[in-house]
Amino acid sequence: MAADPRFLKYVDEHQDDYINRLAQAVAIPSVSGNISYVKDVEAMADFLISQLESLGVKTQRRPIGTHELEGKEVDLPPVVIGEIGNDPKKKTLLIYGHYDVQPALLEDGWLYPPFELTKDPEGTGKLYGRGSTDDKGPVLGWLNVLEAHKNLGLELPVNMKMCFEGMEENGSENLDKFIESEKDKFFTGIDCMCISDNYWLDTKTPCLTYGLRGINYYEIRISGPGRDLHSGVFGGTVHEPMTDLIAIMSKLVTPTGEILVPGIKELIAPVTADEQAKFEAIHFEMKDIHDAVGADVTISNDTVKTLMGRMRNPSLSLHGIEGAFSAVGSKTVIPASIKGKFSIRLVPNLTVKEVTELVVKYVEDEFKKLGSKNKCEVVLTHGGEPWLADPNHYSYRAAHKATEAVYGQAPDYTREGGSIPVTLDFANILNLNVLLLPVGRGDDGAHSTNEKIDTDNYIRGTKLLGSYMYELAAISKE
Amino acid sequence: MAADPRFLKYVDEHQDDYINRLAQAVAIPSVSGNISYVKDVEAMADFLISQLESLGVKTQRRPIGTHELEGKEVDLPPVVIGEIGNDPKKKTLLIYGHYDVQPALLEDGWLYPPFELTKDPEGTGKLYGRGSTDDKGPVLGWLNVLEAHKNLGLELPVNMKMCFEGMEENGSENLDKFIESEKDKFFTGIDCMCISDNYWLDTKTPCLTYGLRGINYYEIRISGPGRDLHSGVFGGTVHEPMTDLIAIMSKLVTPTGEILVPGIKELIAPVTADEQAKFEAIHFEMKDIHDAVGADVTISNDTVKTLMGRMRNPSLSLHGIEGAFSAVGSKTVIPASIKGKFSIRLVPNLTVKEVTELVVKYVEDEFKKLGSKNKCEVVLTHGGEPWLADPNHYSYRAAHKATEAVYGQAPDYTREGGSIPVTLDFANILNLNVLLLPVGRGDDGAHSTNEKIDTDNYIRGTKLLGSYMYELAAISKE
Ligand SMILES: [Zn+2]
Ligand SMILES: [Zn+2]
Ligand SMILES: [Zn+2]
Ligand SMILES: [Zn+2]
Repeated sequence: MAADPRFLKYVDEHQDDYINRLAQAVAIPSVSGNISYVKDVEAMADFLISQLESLGVKTQRRPIGTHELEGKEVDLPPVVIGEIGNDPKKKTLLIYGHYDVQPALLEDGWLYPPFELTKDPEGTGKLYGRGSTDDKGPVLGWLNVLEAHKNLGLELPVNMKMCFEGMEENGSENLDKFIESEKDKFFTGIDCMCISDNYWLDTKTPCLTYGLRGINYYEIRISGPGRDLHSGVFGGTVHEPMTDLIAIMSKLVTPTGEILVPGIKELIAPVTADEQAKFEAIHFEMKDIHDAVGADVTISNDTVKTLMGRMRNPSLSLHGIEGAFSAVGSKTVIPASIKGKFSIRLVPNLTVKEVTELVVKYVEDEFKKLGSKNKCEVVLTHGGEPWLADPNHYSYRAAHKATEAVYGQAPDYTREGGSIPVTLDFANILNLNVLLLPVGRGDDGAHSTNEKIDTDNYIRGTKLLGSYMYELAAISKE
Repeated sequence: MAADPRFLKYVDEHQDDYINRLAQAVAIPSVSGNISYVKDVEAMADFLISQLESLGVKTQRRPIGTHELEGKEVDLPPVVIGEIGNDPKKKTLLIYGHYDVQPALLEDGWLYPPFELTKDPEGTGKLYGRGSTDDKGPVLGWLNVLEAHKNLGLELPVNMKMCFEGMEENGSENLDKFIESEKDKFFTGIDCMCISDNYWLDTKTPCLTYGLRGINYYEIRISGPGRDLHSGVFGGTVHEPMTDLIAIMSKLVTPTGEILVPGIKELIAPVTADEQAKFEAIHFEMKDIHDAVGADVTISNDTVKTLMGRMRNPSLSLHGIEGAFSAVGSKTVIPASIKGKFSIRLVPNLTVKEVTELVVKYVEDEFKKLGSKNKCEVVLTHGGEPWLADPNHYSYRAAHKATEAVYGQAPDYTREGGSIPVTLDFANILNLNVLLLPVGRGDDGAHSTNEKIDTDNYIRGTKLLGSYMYELAAISKE
């Protein structure tokens, strides 16, 4: 069922109101990772609540405990939950967004003050500002939808529940506990979930995102000498931890990206025909990645292989070494105790646990082969599972139709190479299909200087979210 | 010819005077690497000159140009040269020492103020203070010798020339140019040279040092992406510079210290029977190195192999990586541009040039094998040749006899695993046999907190230097 044409017309006619609302939100510097912005994060929660209440959403401001920020114990930003509509004949949609933002300082290279939403004077339609696309723009997209319906006197086609947090950019602390604790209370009766907190792959093609890679981050810790040694005095007489570490690190991955830890490749789920088709349909040129990287250093020049390398295959990156000489210049030190850091991106059917067992066994075996008197241990410092949704679920089919209606083309089906941990928390704790429905473009620069959202994406994004709601209401669950 | 017994007796009877002289010298904080001590370094030169002059040495204070210190252009500390005696029937001995010291701050963990010579209250005879052993103690040893002879009215058995610098701890800048420029002037008519600026191998056995390893320091620079990348987005799609670098670094040396660069092993001079005998005679226990290292991580448990590993074989150490993630924590970065640092200690017949040619060719060949689109270059950032003196030269034979006379035992014949660049400058520019005749013990802690010299080493060191002078005067040049 296409969206009510009065809704679409209203959106077109109220673009300035919507941009105004975004300007108000961007003006509140709700930086969650910095003690001096604690009040602003709270103010942003209040702003959101007052907006939601004025649009008829029954809202709650929920404390979720305290945390340490720059050495001080402070309240965590509240979780804002809300609901509107409870017609048992309608589907119930859960949406999530975050009202906090990354830090931003004008002197870091911003063209305009980061907390003043600024229209590109060259008329491109770009709206610059911290949080414009991550994640205030998409969150306000939903508020715009509600405002249109309220002012037009239109009934919403679905019941909605909402969950907004203010700690996403600083680790989403305690959100998992909150979801767990409300699992059988607030979070009941939900049919499916939609999150708009990622981006198109390029700058032209709307997409639906149905997968995320997980990540296991490891440290290989090697030690032996009781203190750092001088290579003139001790070079040639002792087992040097750096030599051992480099030997082990060199056995993890080949220069063409092949993971050498035995058993990992075998765990990768085989590619289905449907998946293959979805990857082949993605709008992507090698130029896109060469531009993003700043050079042609891609392992393959095949677009499907490259996309699968990013989205559906595991990868292993060596990040660096803690405790070795890392400054400019020439220091003749034999470091006594070092930590080599690497991570493996996980995809189905790799699990944190199985991969760790394989990695630990392999590193220990390879270290034994070195015949070194040093000590070696390998430690998982962080583990996050991969996630994959069913892209043929009715929620995705509804979003597909909405995209065609708003953009005149079918969406690409993408996966993210990185992780968005809250997705897994909602999906696993509430056992829900989660749709990642991006609003912004691949070049929006979330987390960078000069973050922006294009006016067209903001306005069509509002239509997209509203249209998705209508399609979702109408679509068969089978 | 043994030393004049009156000289030896005088030394025993004037220990307090000698310790007093050392206390005066240590009280001048002549730190050459710090702008706030420039005046003190000058004051130390003046102190040395006035002492030398009062002992009958014809002295010159020679400026050697300027340098930049902490951003300011200042005069280099002067070179102090002196001569005493010019009897054509006597041999002429050149001695070198340095009057500058390493920085020292009480709060770094010194037991006593570093610029106040302090006797260990527990009566061990240790004299704590910055410069006590490196190199003020040994330099004053010579002054003590001169004082004894002057006060006793004894004639010196050799002519002496002296060269003292104030920049040794900060790179000996321009000293090579000074030696070159005075090669046919001040530095003429010299038979041999003695430097006391290194240490016994252990704490009990006097030694003569006849070799130094050289060093080539290299950076392997790998770059490709135009900027640092996020491993979630780009892991699995691009050639990562870290993967390439670790692969190359792993091919340089084995965990048991074998250098893998082809051609280097073949350049090592074969061990002669005399060398073998000298190594086997060295007083050394594996416990010595295990204590120094703080753990048993030696490649071999054979003392001769261990000593040769330190002194007469090349070694390759991997020091670290510049530009990779090196902090505490877990950052998922793919570094775009990195520099792997390693050095090779050189021994005869390895040369800076030949080794560099072998290293560059090998690294380039190995990099090609990787099939990476990144760029790789290997750069020699510093090169220093190895040095080896003839340990059967008459100067060494004289020092051997002097050691037996003063210590009642033959000296060990050692080499240093590190480099002392001034040794090569004197040896090569002036074409001289250089004797390294240490005064202090292996645990003196030059460059560390709580640097000390033992009273016994300082006093017997004075006798040793004087006795060496007598033996040198008498010994046949054949
Ligand atoms: Zn976000
Ligand atoms: Zn973000
Ligand atoms: Zn020294
Ligand atoms: Zn020194």
